Amino acid sequence: MSKPSILVQLDTDPQPSVFDAVVAVDAGVGHLFRHGSVTAEDVRDLVYGALFTRGPADLHQTALFVGGSDVAAGEAVLKAVKATFFGPFRVSVLFDANGCNTTAAAAVLAAVEGAGGSLQGVAAAVLGGTGPVGQRVARLLLRLGARVVVGSRSLERAEAVAAALRAATGGACEAHSTSKPDELAHALQGVAVVVAAGAAKALLLPAVVRSALPELKVAIDLNAVPPLGIEGVEATDKRKERNGVLAWGALGVGGTKMKIHKKAVQELFTSNDKALDAEEVLEIGRSLG
Amino acid sequence: MSKPSILVQLDTDPQPSVFDAVVAVDAGVGHLFRHGSVTAEDVRDLVYGALFTRGPADLHQTALFVGGSDVAAGEAVLKAVKATFFGPFRVSVLFDANGCNTTAAAAVLAAVEGAGGSLQGVAAAVLGGTGPVGQRVARLLLRLGARVVVGSRSLERAEAVAAALRAATGGACEAHSTSKPDELAHALQGVAVVVAAGAAKALLLPAVVRSALPELKVAIDLNAVPPLGIEGVEATDKRKERNGVLAWGALGVGGTKMKIHKKAVQELFTSNDKALDAEEVLEIGRSLG
Amino acid sequence: MSKPSILVQLDTDPQPSVFDAVVAVDAGVGHLFRHGSVTAEDVRDLVYGALFTRGPADLHQTALFVGGSDVAAGEAVLKAVKATFFGPFRVSVLFDANGCNTTAAAAVLAAVEGAGGSLQGVAAAVLGGTGPVGQRVARLLLRLGARVVVGSRSLERAEAVAAALRAATGGACEAHSTSKPDELAHALQGVAVVVAAGAAKALLLPAVVRSALPELKVAIDLNAVPPLGIEGVEATDKRKERNGVLAWGALGVGGTKMKIHKKAVQELFTSNDKALDAEEVLEIGRSLG
Repeated sequence: MSKPSILVQLDTDPQPSVFDAVVAVDAGVGHLFRHGSVTAEDVRDLVYGALFTRGPADLHQTALFVGGSDVAAGEAVLKAVKATFFGPFRVSVLFDANGCNTTAAAAVLAAVEGAGGSLQGVAAAVLGGTGPVGQRVARLLLRLGARVVVGSRSLERAEAVAAALRAATGGACEAHSTSKPDELAHALQGVAVVVAAGAAKALLLPAVVRSALPELKVAIDLNAVPPLGIEGVEATDKRKERNGVLAWGALGVGGTKMKIHKKAVQELFTSNDKALDAEEVLEIGRSLG
Repeated sequence: MSKPSILVQLDTDPQPSVFDAVVAVDAGVGHLFRHGSVTAEDVRDLVYGALFTRGPADLHQTALFVGGSDVAAGEAVLKAVKATFFGPFRVSVLFDANGCNTTAAAAVLAAVEGAGGSLQGVAAAVLGGTGPVGQRVARLLLRLGARVVVGSRSLERAEAVAAALRAATGGACEAHSTSKPDELAHALQGVAVVVAAGAAKALLLPAVVRSALPELKVAIDLNAVPPLGIEGVEATDKRKERNGVLAWGALGVGGTKMKIHKKAVQELFTSNDKALDAEEVLEIGRSLG
Repeated sequence: MSKPSILVQLDTDPQPSVFDAVVAVDAGVGHLFRHGSVTAEDVRDLVYGALFTRGPADLHQTALFVGGSDVAAGEAVLKAVKATFFGPFRVSVLFDANGCNTTAAAAVLAAVEGAGGSLQGVAAAVLGGTGPVGQRVARLLLRLGARVVVGSRSLERAEAVAAALRAATGGACEAHSTSKPDELAHALQGVAVVVAAGAAKALLLPAVVRSALPELKVAIDLNAVPPLGIEGVEATDKRKERNGVLAWGALGVGGTKMKIHKKAVQELFTSNDKALDAEEVLEIGRSLG
């Protein structure tokens, strides 16, 4: 008989996420080991405990989840986790700090749907594109063949991100400043899909700018706290027509996000070598059909 | 199939209570998420994790327990929990910091039994009546129709508590200083039920004062650490006759307290909108028959 | 029906051990309560929670595990745990801070095997014999009838440990300094079994000294991090012949260690009064055959 499944929750916040824990339970995890305030320095001993306790036949029944509200802190933990693995001594790991991967995947799936089934050659823009969710959305849009504008108040940051994304994906990615209305309008010219991935309470796309974008077909706003990121889109919108544009709000993509998250946790236990980051999480989302 | 039950233990102490956790397991909780050092500031994110993960049909399978040794700190957490709920986004919550509600309910049920089945019109006194357990005992006695004296070393504190209890219950509640033996004797004149709810190791009712109370029928001492609160009552007393008075000690009410606690945890999962504080916990105790 | 088994993990490290938690799950524990940063001061309330929640018929279904990387800190917690018990109010407890007891037991079982089934009258030496694992190995060797040399860089510490072990076991135990090669050679003269139990990365027995020990039959190295403690022994060695000596490395005794650990956890739940320290853990190992 197989050993019970164990998920080790490595959370960088002092109180480990209840959200992630409930999803783990609902994904069918048998035992959840919850750790808060996890730093890269803590990782080795914690991961050794996962690696050295079960034999090869049962190792896929132990897995790791890296979370917490600070995506950069989570990435440091993830890096330390991967550095601890060696040879066959590895377990599967899902990275979803601040829900960044499941949110980005759900947003991109909405974009695919809104664009009629394919993003190949579609012009898209990501506002707040230099943050952890925005970067992931841009990366995934590029993977699916879109041409992507990374918008940010800081042109310098946008250019650095765009360069990194071009190098990573080989896709067509350019940077625009969006700090002034005319810059924003310029950045969005000809764009069919826009995703707002900025900080809470930051209005990224005013109605006056949006109404002057005749080619816009899809508007996705990942901010759930009013004022929302795209004026005229509601948090609960889910493929809602708003002035000829199909709109999704943060809660509107939330159902898909939850399904992806749950499925990704289950995927961890299918082998001991899964490393589920943005691309892998998107693939899981696409497989849900 | 219903989702597994989850109880989120929000404890204000650095080490979350093992006592509360064992009772939760014995109440049949499927998964227990234990959080220590919880402050009001932590609450929103933790509660959001409970609210936004399961749909309306399963929301009653997630619940909260607020505990810890500091009742005031727990009350601040409870207040923050309730402030986080909105519309249908709520889960059931049990408040039992320092066992205050289950202890008070068990004590009041012993008082009812000792008084012959009813407290209607019965004269009762609560020594240590301004502390968290004492205030709850007084409130519950008033709810059941007793006339209640709140005794405290500080008349000022006793008067503030009595005024608040009158306002809350509409019952007959008065305040007495009990700092000197003659004040104590005066406060207890004509009393049929006395409950000692003071701090550990504080003798609140010396034998010499008690022996001069001819109408006293019931003495309940909630202090388990010697010297006990009522001289002549033992911690293990359970409806034990002591010089013509029916006596209960802290361990003597402990069995009832445990049953109430366990039943209250089970009650949480019957709907997603239970808020179990003193009165509701007493009702659960009364339903146990 | 019996209540679910609960293991309370009292760990002195900020992040409670994942290793110990996985073994607990694999031993069949129903619910695991994990506590980190546990100090002796925390113990009373935590243990009270274990003692006062279940009746005598179910008390054996609650047990304690004391762990953490600092053996001395763990011993202080264990002492506080035992001081909290009184009369029938006790639960079973396993002490295995830093794996010291399960490692020592596994090493001694390897020594028995290497010595042909008995240590009665066998000359043995423990290098790094004043550390927590070394002291336990020496004590267990003495219990099984071996004559034991405790080796340490500090003769003073070695003599203190040897005196304590003679007093505790009545066995033949002497102390030697091993800080210089000739002292080391002298300490090991005539020895048939040597166990290296020093700190990680400390070479305790160079090949040049070992090759001049004609009576040596068994070499056990408990250090898993190169450079290993006994030159010429590999971490994976398991009854491996190395120049006429049967050798075990840290990973080579690891399988036995894990089986002992798991069985010891299961043993906790057979009654409410087990106190599993070095000798009891060794007995469990011997019973595994």
